[in-house]
Amino acid sequence: MAAQRRIDLVLDSVRRLLRIGASANLLNLLQKQHPADLAQVFSELPDKEREAAFSLLAERNGRLAMEAISELGPEAGAPLLATRPAEEIAKLAQEIPSDDAAALIDHLPEELSASVLNLMRPKESGVVENLLEYDEQTAGRIMNPHVFALSEDMTVGEAITELQTNRDVEMVFYLYVVDERRHLVGVTSLRRLLLVAPETPLKRIMTADLISARVDMDQEEVARQVASYNLLAIPVVDEENKLVGVITVDDVIDVIKDEATEDIMRLAGVAGDERVFTPAGESLRKRLPWLGVNLATAFLAASVVGLFTRTIDALPILAVFMPIVAGMGGNAATQTLTVIVRGIALGELSWSNSRKALIKEALVGIGNGIVLGAVAALVAGLFRGDPILGLVLGAAMVINMFVAATAGVLVPLGLRAGGVDPALASSVFITTMTDVFGFFSFLGLATLFARYLAAAG
Amino acid sequence: MAAQRRIDLVLDSVRRLLRIGASANLLNLLQKQHPADLAQVFSELPDKEREAAFSLLAERNGRLAMEAISELGPEAGAPLLATRPAEEIAKLAQEIPSDDAAALIDHLPEELSASVLNLMRPKESGVVENLLEYDEQTAGRIMNPHVFALSEDMTVGEAITELQTNRDVEMVFYLYVVDERRHLVGVTSLRRLLLVAPETPLKRIMTADLISARVDMDQEEVARQVASYNLLAIPVVDEENKLVGVITVDDVIDVIKDEATEDIMRLAGVAGDERVFTPAGESLRKRLPWLGVNLATAFLAASVVGLFTRTIDALPILAVFMPIVAGMGGNAATQTLTVIVRGIALGELSWSNSRKALIKEALVGIGNGIVLGAVAALVAGLFRGDPILGLVLGAAMVINMFVAATAGVLVPLGLRAGGVDPALASSVFITTMTDVFGFFSFLGLATLFARYLAAAG
Repeated sequence: MAAQRRIDLVLDSVRRLLRIGASANLLNLLQKQHPADLAQVFSELPDKEREAAFSLLAERNGRLAMEAISELGPEAGAPLLATRPAEEIAKLAQEIPSDDAAALIDHLPEELSASVLNLMRPKESGVVENLLEYDEQTAGRIMNPHVFALSEDMTVGEAITELQTNRDVEMVFYLYVVDERRHLVGVTSLRRLLLVAPETPLKRIMTADLISARVDMDQEEVARQVASYNLLAIPVVDEENKLVGVITVDDVIDVIKDEATEDIMRLAGVAGDERVFTPAGESLRKRLPWLGVNLATAFLAASVVGLFTRTIDALPILAVFMPIVAGMGGNAATQTLTVIVRGIALGELSWSNSRKALIKEALVGIGNGIVLGAVAALVAGLFRGDPILGLVLGAAMVINMFVAATAGVLVPLGLRAGGVDPALASSVFITTMTDVFGFFSFLGLATLFARYLAAAG
Repeated sequence: MAAQRRIDLVLDSVRRLLRIGASANLLNLLQKQHPADLAQVFSELPDKEREAAFSLLAERNGRLAMEAISELGPEAGAPLLATRPAEEIAKLAQEIPSDDAAALIDHLPEELSASVLNLMRPKESGVVENLLEYDEQTAGRIMNPHVFALSEDMTVGEAITELQTNRDVEMVFYLYVVDERRHLVGVTSLRRLLLVAPETPLKRIMTADLISARVDMDQEEVARQVASYNLLAIPVVDEENKLVGVITVDDVIDVIKDEATEDIMRLAGVAGDERVFTPAGESLRKRLPWLGVNLATAFLAASVVGLFTRTIDALPILAVFMPIVAGMGGNAATQTLTVIVRGIALGELSWSNSRKALIKEALVGIGNGIVLGAVAALVAGLFRGDPILGLVLGAAMVINMFVAATAGVLVPLGLRAGGVDPALASSVFITTMTDVFGFFSFLGLATLFARYLAAAG
């Protein structure tokens, strides 16, 4: 938490300096920060102060300002740019790598982004436009198109000279090797260059068997490759295997975080891209449909209760215990569903081992049902002095927890087989099922055994 | 998905070769795989076949077998080792880096892990034992203690020679520089060595201002540093700033995934370390306490319903609509809670900007409440021919969604301020609140307006 404390200190100073209008001191403070820390400070500042601080920095140190809002992410960063004239945005965009610039420009209002692209240097805007042509969430969209490559006909000595003269090359832990038409043919490392004589042909020390990503590969798959093979970067090739870019591990970390966030949000019925400070109106629009579907299914469940109004009429005490059966089923289902959805996302679960998962969850569901059903039966039986009511409650819980467990496994696997994100739609299906089965089993059993149940006191 | 298809093919072949007992062919196939792919194959094989395939590989290619189960993770990997004699485990453990070995040995049954450590080469077992002395989930526990460092008194030429002779050095994208007592004093890169004359002192081209992690730093904080500063590795130092290890970005990716999984699981009331194939008995034990707490709170909510049995007695139709108010409040609260908990985890939300989040969520809650309350009021009013019942239902939903939104923000922030993981305990508190307030507002309003409500048809 030391880092957070330091940022809090900076944050306080920024706000104080803004208040007293000490621009020179403020600029001085901001320029001393790492872009990632600045992004953190920006994200915690109230809107007006964030704009003021960003404006000041953008005018004096465009690169740092742009690096900071790149770190902040395009959703939060682009609005800071959007208030500025297109000429200035075009100039600022040229200060950062094309992939970061593309992400920011893509999040500007449409007209503004078109003028910005028009105003950028033709070469730079061309690169950005090319990136924007790739589909969102693909390798092409997140790659850095400025990738350093060595020619396969070089010697090691020539390669070293090339590295020494190309001063702005950043990523040199992997040296990609291409043929004369820029097809990717191999990879080597700076360290390997140092271990052999300068006249050795590069071909002889390169590894021809290397992992690459196609421009149209889904970013999640790219992340999975980089993570499972422990890579620091992955070269990106087009359909002809020509080297067109590179994705480094820091971009992959962002993808992994975003995908995890998406899963967490979707499981809760929130859009994958919603964040804490998404404007209220947008959040409302994004959350309403899901709540609307839930309302419809709640009415469906209510209509099941409606089938038993006569029983409830005779025994109003049933209304007291009825939500317990449905609610506990919902809780148990959420547990199973979450374990299964995360297992799918982590690649631990597939069709081939789903039977094992189903058996396990069914056992856990029955086990939980028996233990909790017994407790609930005891409590209800003792406090109400009605052992049959307790038994009905316990039995309904066992049934509903078994339903919860099997649905928790089968629904996400089924959705996935049908090409639907299991994190997105599973929970609606499943809570509906646990509500309907919960009400039906409890009230149904109560109706069957009505004559043995004591009337409410 | 191409990677998954390839793994499915390998998986099928492995099962076929095991069935017909073609050990030589199987071994040949296994040895051609990358450790990460082998881990995937192992994870999808049924228990018996996994053990058979691992045994075969361990006997012939111990290193690959161990690398594969390291990739698989210690929870799933250690049980494969545990069936083998201690001598063999000790030999196998020496085939992989000490941090990976330590993680596996730590997950063996206690007696077995003690004998394994006894049987390892003193130097190796010493390193592993040292690692095991650090607390779980700290930098010390996940670092690689074999870190390559250069002395600050060297020249660039000497440093290059050192690199050329130390052939087993893996990570050379950052070259850490230490003084004669191994205090960390700077960092440079292989590429920078190539840009200057061999007689340049190392001191002159190193950066003295570098980011490091203390051995006792929480792994989550380590991951945050590496991710936000886009590092490929972070040096680990002891309390005297002596260099003791290094954590590379691939380990950080594992931490980020684990922490995200932990958050997802905890939000659903599942232990952070539970996985799809955690044995049923263990899952049951881990999930029961949470369900038990929920059962207790469900009885609490039920007792609120119990306060109104007289009203329900008179109007059993209330029992039909009652779960809708509570359920929709629960859904809305889960949305808010998830956005807030994830915002805290991503560092986007802190006390300083929590007021803004509270106002936003309250607005969204009221907005959702009005829209959905109106729909529910209409449906209930029209279908039941009782507009007052519709109004009561709608008003209760608005109230409960407002409660859901404010609780969804305040409970996780409050828990966090109290040092409790907000992902862990928030949902119990919040569903209890939405149930209690849902029942109370709906049945309370219905009791107030009882004389205007039509009796059930």
